[in-house]
Amino acid sequence: MKKILFLLYLPLSLYGQIPPVEAIRQWVKDNGAHILQEFIPLLKIPNHASDLPNIKKNADLLQQLFTSRGFKMQLLERLDAPPIVYGEYKVPGATRTWCFYVHYDGQPVDVSRWQHDPFEPVLYDGPMDKGGKQIPFPQAGEAIEDEWRIYARSSSDDKAPIMALIGAVDALKQAGLSYTSNIKLFFDGEEESGSPNVQAYLQNHPHLFEDIDVWLICDGSVFQTGAPQFKFGGRGITSMELTVYGATRPLHSGHYGNWAPVPGQMLARLLTSMKDENGKVLIEGFYDSVEPISAIERDQINKVPPVEAQLKKELGLVVTEGEGQRLNQRLLLPSLTVRGLSSGNVGAKSRNIIPNTATATLGMRLVKGNDPEKMLDLVEAHIKKEGWHIVYEEPDMVIRLQHPKIVKVTRSATGLKAAKTSMDHNKVKPIIETMREFTNDKMVLLPSSGASNRVYYVIFEVLKKPGIGVNIVNHDNNQHAANENLRLGNLWYGVELMAVLLTMD
Amino acid sequence: MKKILFLLYLPLSLYGQIPPVEAIRQWVKDNGAHILQEFIPLLKIPNHASDLPNIKKNADLLQQLFTSRGFKMQLLERLDAPPIVYGEYKVPGATRTWCFYVHYDGQPVDVSRWQHDPFEPVLYDGPMDKGGKQIPFPQAGEAIEDEWRIYARSSSDDKAPIMALIGAVDALKQAGLSYTSNIKLFFDGEEESGSPNVQAYLQNHPHLFEDIDVWLICDGSVFQTGAPQFKFGGRGITSMELTVYGATRPLHSGHYGNWAPVPGQMLARLLTSMKDENGKVLIEGFYDSVEPISAIERDQINKVPPVEAQLKKELGLVVTEGEGQRLNQRLLLPSLTVRGLSSGNVGAKSRNIIPNTATATLGMRLVKGNDPEKMLDLVEAHIKKEGWHIVYEEPDMVIRLQHPKIVKVTRSATGLKAAKTSMDHNKVKPIIETMREFTNDKMVLLPSSGASNRVYYVIFEVLKKPGIGVNIVNHDNNQHAANENLRLGNLWYGVELMAVLLTMD
Repeated sequence: MKKILFLLYLPLSLYGQIPPVEAIRQWVKDNGAHILQEFIPLLKIPNHASDLPNIKKNADLLQQLFTSRGFKMQLLERLDAPPIVYGEYKVPGATRTWCFYVHYDGQPVDVSRWQHDPFEPVLYDGPMDKGGKQIPFPQAGEAIEDEWRIYARSSSDDKAPIMALIGAVDALKQAGLSYTSNIKLFFDGEEESGSPNVQAYLQNHPHLFEDIDVWLICDGSVFQTGAPQFKFGGRGITSMELTVYGATRPLHSGHYGNWAPVPGQMLARLLTSMKDENGKVLIEGFYDSVEPISAIERDQINKVPPVEAQLKKELGLVVTEGEGQRLNQRLLLPSLTVRGLSSGNVGAKSRNIIPNTATATLGMRLVKGNDPEKMLDLVEAHIKKEGWHIVYEEPDMVIRLQHPKIVKVTRSATGLKAAKTSMDHNKVKPIIETMREFTNDKMVLLPSSGASNRVYYVIFEVLKKPGIGVNIVNHDNNQHAANENLRLGNLWYGVELMAVLLTMD
Repeated sequence: MKKILFLLYLPLSLYGQIPPVEAIRQWVKDNGAHILQEFIPLLKIPNHASDLPNIKKNADLLQQLFTSRGFKMQLLERLDAPPIVYGEYKVPGATRTWCFYVHYDGQPVDVSRWQHDPFEPVLYDGPMDKGGKQIPFPQAGEAIEDEWRIYARSSSDDKAPIMALIGAVDALKQAGLSYTSNIKLFFDGEEESGSPNVQAYLQNHPHLFEDIDVWLICDGSVFQTGAPQFKFGGRGITSMELTVYGATRPLHSGHYGNWAPVPGQMLARLLTSMKDENGKVLIEGFYDSVEPISAIERDQINKVPPVEAQLKKELGLVVTEGEGQRLNQRLLLPSLTVRGLSSGNVGAKSRNIIPNTATATLGMRLVKGNDPEKMLDLVEAHIKKEGWHIVYEEPDMVIRLQHPKIVKVTRSATGLKAAKTSMDHNKVKPIIETMREFTNDKMVLLPSSGASNRVYYVIFEVLKKPGIGVNIVNHDNNQHAANENLRLGNLWYGVELMAVLLTMD
């Protein structure tokens, strides 16, 4: 989903004052045009996870790009699934191993909505929707502006971190700087399809992954204001559908109106019992399992630049749930959302009937401590407390004639727990401190994204490994939509960031 | 809509003890087969109001059937509309004039759901869905059973009363009995399309209608138990659609869930504020304009055989709105029904979003005293009292940023007031008394049907003429659906009833 925003791009690459940033910055000036030329062929290969022949071409090119730079590469394969592009670079004497997670697949494209072919990268001198003009890709030695943008599918999400890593590798080589950690690469080919095989890949090749100390999960954009951003987790997710029953069939609203039960009215009452007007969920125990956030997490949340007033203005809102509280505070709590409602018909198709059912789909986002199944249990307990009889399939006449209020509950099959790495983790803290120095303490550290991510979950919660979400691309990159793009200033920021990571003490 | 029921057919035609019932009964025995033979050609002509060539054929045949019986017939016409088949029979010395309203158009047919061609009448020896078998139509002199049924579109709704009238006319002629009232006929050709021209027809030919003392509106079925039934009005109707607004676009439930307003939740709260759990509408003044019913009406309501327990069993209900109160009492109050709900998607199409709108369509049935526009005003006043800002078109950004809770109200363009003739009306009371005698006081008198009927409204409330809804057909006639049918016992009951009306003092 496209993020909206108000641009306030700070020159990210000027924050850093620590070596090897100066050397990298000069290398980028001299070699930026070359990096773009190497990026173009990678962007030209279509990359939807279901397009296995093209996915294989992407994987082959990625292997080639890193093999030529001294990485030992291989493809991990499963039948009928995109391969993992796996790589290693061993550093003599290194005492730690980091793994860079990136995904090389992209969202499907609706070509009719793109200004250009999504797999024919073009360069613009600014955002296309703000008057930017198409320009030729620069030749070696020509100056490159930070505000230029490459338009192509996956230019940001998520091939940009791969190119940033390649730039860092090349720049460090020219500067004669060595890596300070062993490096592993894990390039996922089906993240946009939910990474259904990532857990099997990791668990089927334990010897490749057991020595990894920290995962650097490179996906997602910097903060809305343009400030650097790092994330330490994602919310869990589950859902539940409720169908309430009136009579066995739709009834004539004249012959039965004011006598027959009205399912839409009954459902409204049930939903109203679940949440107060300020957005507080009234289901008993709903917030009880939430793990408290740490002092450092609270501290970081308080440092997040305020975006609420601007967001409300852009979204046409006067009040929000939990009005007055910060967005990122609210994302540290589980949510309960009516994501769908249906009964009879509205608009031109509406008829003079009393519908026989009404259905609501409830979405929940979960935080650390919340178990998806137990959270659904709490909702069911609430429903019972409100006097409802719960069934799990269509009620038959025997059931109907025993219970005045019947609701069918359908629980999600794909619940996911929240995932989080503690900012206090001893293998993570040094990275945070280096990034604080690199960004001149202007970075945003989010204890958790609001969204849900299976990769975070598998790494943090199944493998029990720490990780950091490393975000480099511009937030207004149109990811998942038409005219996806990458601001070049963010690519150079990524090159510097990767170089700092590869060489930090 | 098909009515459900439990059959308890009393031999309707045995109630009557008054002349000329005995004569008519004998005539039916001798001539029943002939009446059915005359019915068949009328049932063979398709009769949807939009099929003007066939509608004209129906009208022509009706003219011919009554012209040959001494009525002075004419077609009242409007361009592109079905004609009214109008007729007169003047009786020397008669001091009153009655008009029989019947409609000769029918509901559209879905042939695929019919057992036989809906316009090729067939005879069964019992209900098709309860093991009845097809039999040949009887020849003159053969015995005819009351439980036999004719299957054809409009066999009940509403060509049956026309045939009953023809039978009565023929039987009275053979018995040498004269009519005691001047008779007029008004056969509507578009009732199933809402009778959009009936008011214009009546008002454009005032000289034809001004001398009518009582309208006998022959449409609808006898009571669910099979008891004779007469109706004195219908409820009014109106509706209103409500759309509530969240953000300007659907939002990612991860990035914004627990912060962004949830329209489905807001709408549920609004709907819940309108009605209590027992079905009582909480909108201020909702019941204030209801005109009290008269003593005779209350008396008749109390006499209606109890059907609630059986209805609940058939519909799978343990409790109803106003649990414990009688269905026909509840129909004497205005109703407020959620007839449609929509927000985002449910089921397989449901996505992890916070929808940007939620919509409910409310249906209202009205009783005497309720003005449709004023009732909608009360709903709007309630919505405002609940803190909502009402708009009548999509809110723009200026509006959105001024009001925390915005609802768009769309009011019905086709509100209709309730219509009722008092059972105390001095021109109606003698008819009630005769019917009481004819039915041996076993009849059901309903002050109002729950349904809404433009014809009742135009006659009772615009022309200010009294009328009675005269119901003769079986309630389980599948009207409006496939396999519509007429129980022959009900046709003979209709013949007797018409004969009694035509000859009463």
